[in-house]
Amino acid sequence: MAKKVPTEADKKMEELVSLCRRRGFIFQSSLIYGGINSCWDYGPLGVELKNNIKRFWWKSMTQDRDDIEGLDASIIMHPRVWEASGHVAGFHDPLVDCKQCKHRFRADEVNSPACPDCGGELTEPRQFNLMFKTFVGPVEEEAALVYLRPETAQGIYVNFLNVLGPSRQKIPFGIAQIGKAFRNEITPGNFVFRMREFEQMEMQYFVRPGTDEQWFDYWKEQRMQWYLNLGIRKEKLRIHEHTHKELAHYARKALDIEYEFPFGWKELEGVHNRTDFDLSRHQEYSSKDLTYFDQELNQHYVPYIIETSAGVDRTLLTCLIDAYEVENPGKKEERTVLRLSPKIAPIKAAILPLVNRDGMPDVAKKIADELRPHLKIFYDDGGSIGRRYRRQDEAGTPFGITVDSQTLQDETVTLRERDSMSQIRVKISELKDALLKRIAI
Amino acid sequence: MAKKVPTEADKKMEELVSLCRRRGFIFQSSLIYGGINSCWDYGPLGVELKNNIKRFWWKSMTQDRDDIEGLDASIIMHPRVWEASGHVAGFHDPLVDCKQCKHRFRADEVNSPACPDCGGELTEPRQFNLMFKTFVGPVEEEAALVYLRPETAQGIYVNFLNVLGPSRQKIPFGIAQIGKAFRNEITPGNFVFRMREFEQMEMQYFVRPGTDEQWFDYWKEQRMQWYLNLGIRKEKLRIHEHTHKELAHYARKALDIEYEFPFGWKELEGVHNRTDFDLSRHQEYSSKDLTYFDQELNQHYVPYIIETSAGVDRTLLTCLIDAYEVENPGKKEERTVLRLSPKIAPIKAAILPLVNRDGMPDVAKKIADELRPHLKIFYDDGGSIGRRYRRQDEAGTPFGITVDSQTLQDETVTLRERDSMSQIRVKISELKDALLKRIAI
Repeated sequence: MAKKVPTEADKKMEELVSLCRRRGFIFQSSLIYGGINSCWDYGPLGVELKNNIKRFWWKSMTQDRDDIEGLDASIIMHPRVWEASGHVAGFHDPLVDCKQCKHRFRADEVNSPACPDCGGELTEPRQFNLMFKTFVGPVEEEAALVYLRPETAQGIYVNFLNVLGPSRQKIPFGIAQIGKAFRNEITPGNFVFRMREFEQMEMQYFVRPGTDEQWFDYWKEQRMQWYLNLGIRKEKLRIHEHTHKELAHYARKALDIEYEFPFGWKELEGVHNRTDFDLSRHQEYSSKDLTYFDQELNQHYVPYIIETSAGVDRTLLTCLIDAYEVENPGKKEERTVLRLSPKIAPIKAAILPLVNRDGMPDVAKKIADELRPHLKIFYDDGGSIGRRYRRQDEAGTPFGITVDSQTLQDETVTLRERDSMSQIRVKISELKDALLKRIAI
Repeated sequence: MAKKVPTEADKKMEELVSLCRRRGFIFQSSLIYGGINSCWDYGPLGVELKNNIKRFWWKSMTQDRDDIEGLDASIIMHPRVWEASGHVAGFHDPLVDCKQCKHRFRADEVNSPACPDCGGELTEPRQFNLMFKTFVGPVEEEAALVYLRPETAQGIYVNFLNVLGPSRQKIPFGIAQIGKAFRNEITPGNFVFRMREFEQMEMQYFVRPGTDEQWFDYWKEQRMQWYLNLGIRKEKLRIHEHTHKELAHYARKALDIEYEFPFGWKELEGVHNRTDFDLSRHQEYSSKDLTYFDQELNQHYVPYIIETSAGVDRTLLTCLIDAYEVENPGKKEERTVLRLSPKIAPIKAAILPLVNRDGMPDVAKKIADELRPHLKIFYDDGGSIGRRYRRQDEAGTPFGITVDSQTLQDETVTLRERDSMSQIRVKISELKDALLKRIAI
C-alpha cells in the first residue's frame, strides 16, 4: 500500500491547526523540546474559549435548574474504586504491531489483515490496560499503586451519599462534574479529538428504576439542544443509537451524539442508561449501603443512572471546526472568520481607533477601560483598520467598536458585527448594554 | 513524649472539617473505601466556592488588565522540562523515620534529635524526590517515563514565545495559569492546606532586567490587595520576606504572603524575583533562542521573571477559616455563620416562603425561576423559617428573600442580610438589581 495522499479533510484540519497555533488557541505541549505526543496546551484565546464552554455547561447543569448538584472529585482515588468499576479487569484495548514498519494500531480500528500503512504482516492482538499508574508515598518500595482516573464518573458514584445528604435532594436528581481524565491511548490523534490527557463534563442522573427509559429520552433531547444552544449547526449533528452488539456491559441503552468532523462522523457525547450497575458494584466492593430510601414508595432501592458524558476538548474542537470559514478563497476579498457564538467567543469586543491621531486612541482607551470590568475586550491600534478587523474575525471576536472622527463630534461609535460585517452607530453611553444584550451570556 | 492533647486550634479545625462535610463543602476522597490520604473532593458548595475564587483571580489577572494573557498547559509535559527546571536533580525533601514507632517526618520539620511522637531514635535523613512518575505508551517496557507536574509555572516558561507572538504583547507582560499540580509530600496535612493533588494559580510577569525590583514591589502590593478584595481580614495577613538563607537557588528576592491559620502563620502565596534563571535554563536545555527583542533598547535579552504563586485550595481554606464564626456559643441564640464575601459565596440568595400555604410557595418559586438565570440561588420550603435561615448562614449565603403575607398584598419581599440579620423590604420587580448590586461580582 502506498503512503496516504492528503485529503481535503486533512487539508482542512491542517489549516485549522495552523490557525490555532498562529492565533494562540492551541499549541503542542512542550514544543521547544520537540513536543510530547497527544498532549496540547491552550493559549490565551484557547483557554478563554475552553473556560466559556465549561461555564456554559456548568450553568446549564447546576444553575439554570435546581435538580443537579456540582462536584469536583480528585484525580487520584482509592485503587479499589477501579476494581469496583471494572476498569482494572476490563479497561483494555487490543493492540497489533506491524512486523515490517513497526507502526502500532488498535486491532479494532484495522479493517484489513495487513498493515494499513505499508501492507506488512500484523502481530496477534495483545490486550493493554489504558489506565496510567503512579505511586503514592515517598519510599518507592512501600508506595501504593494508584491510577490517574480514566473517567470522572466514578468520583460521582462514590460520592453519591455524600452529596445526597447535604444537598437534601430527592430522586430524580443529578450530580455534575468537570475535570481531567487520563487514558494511555494506543492511537491518540486528530488534534485535540483524542488525547491522553483530556477534560470531561459528566453528569450522572439518579432515577427510580422503571423511570429510566423516560429519563434516557429526556436527556437525549436536552443534550442535543445544548449543542444547538452552543451555536453548532444542526445539519452537522446526529444521533447514533447503539445496537445490542455495541452496548457496553453496564448499559441497557446507549447513544452517541455525533458531529461530522472533517475526518468523519465521530462521537461528541454519550448518553447511557447504566442501570444500577455502578452503585451496586460500589456497594458490593465497599460493603457500604448505597441504597436510597424513596419516601413516596416507602422502599429502599439502588437508583438507576442516566449518564451524559461529554468531552471539553472535543466540544471545543467542534466549535472551532463548525465556526471556521474562509470566504472568497484566493480572491482579494478573502476573509478567514471564526463564527463562534458570542456566548463562547474568547474576546467579546475589539476597541479600535480608526487612526492613531486626533485623540481617537484616547477616546478608544477610555471606552476600553469602561467596558473591561464587564466583558473580555481587546484594544488594538496597530495597523490599518481593515487588517485589524481581519485579525479579530480570525479570532472569533463577534463585535468591533470603532472610534472615528464622527465620535469626536457626537459621542457615537460604530458597532461592527463580525458575521455580516454590517455596522451601526451606537452612543458610547449605551455601548455596554448594547453589547451585553447581544452577547446574552 | 506523651501523645498530643487536642489544642484550641485542633478543635477549631475539627469544627470546620465537620461543617465542611455536613454542608457539602469538602469530603475525604474515596470515603466509602476508607479514604485516600491527603486527597479531598469538593462537594456542591465547595466546588462553587472554588470556582468563584478561581474566577475572581482569573478576572483580576486576565480581564481587568490588558498586560496579562491566560494559558492552560497540560499536566504531563516532556520530561526534559523537569531536567531544565532543576526538579529532577533537586526537588527533594529529606525524610527521617522513627526506629521505634515507625512514624515518618520531614527532617527539616523535626526540631529534636528524637521522634516528636514517641521520643524514639530517628534514622539518618534520606532524600526523596517529590515528583509523581508515570509511563506514557501502552507497552510498559517501551513506555516513556514522565512526571505529573509539581508546579504549573514551567508550562508558562516553555510557552513564553508561543504566547508572545499571537498576543502581540510587549515587555512588561504576564502569563497567568490555573491548574492542578501533584507532589508526593512526606507529611501532607492540615485538611486541604497541604495535599498531594492540589490546584495552583500562578502568574509569571516578564520584565526588562534592572526593572525587576520595582516590579517585585508592585506585585507584592497587588497580591496583598487581592486577598483584601477577597474579603480576608487584614489583621490575619502579613508579609514574610525571605532572608538570604531562605532564598531558593533561582530567586534573588522572595516573600510569602502569610495568613494566621489556627495551626499558625503559614504561607498563602509566594512572590519571587526569579531573575533570568528559568528562561536561561530552558534556552540551554532546548537549544532554542528564548531571548526577547526590546525595540526601545534595540537589544535582545532574556527577560527577568516576577512570579506570583498561590494555591487554590489553600485560598479556599483561608476563606472558610476567616469567615467561620460561632456567635453566642452554648446559648439559645447560638448561630454558626460563614461570613463569606458575597462575591465568592456559593449560593447568592435563598428564596423562602414564610409558610407553606396561602400561595406563598408559588410566589417564591416564581421569584426563584426569575432569578435563577442571573444568580446561583436556592429555593427552600422545608422546616421553620428560623431553621432555614440558620442553614443558609452556615452555608455562607449572604442574602435571604422571604415571601410573607405582605408579599401577597404589595408585591414586596423581605431581603435579609446574613451578617447583620437586618431585613428590608424590596419590590419583587427590583429584586434582581438589588441583589446584583450587593453582590457586585
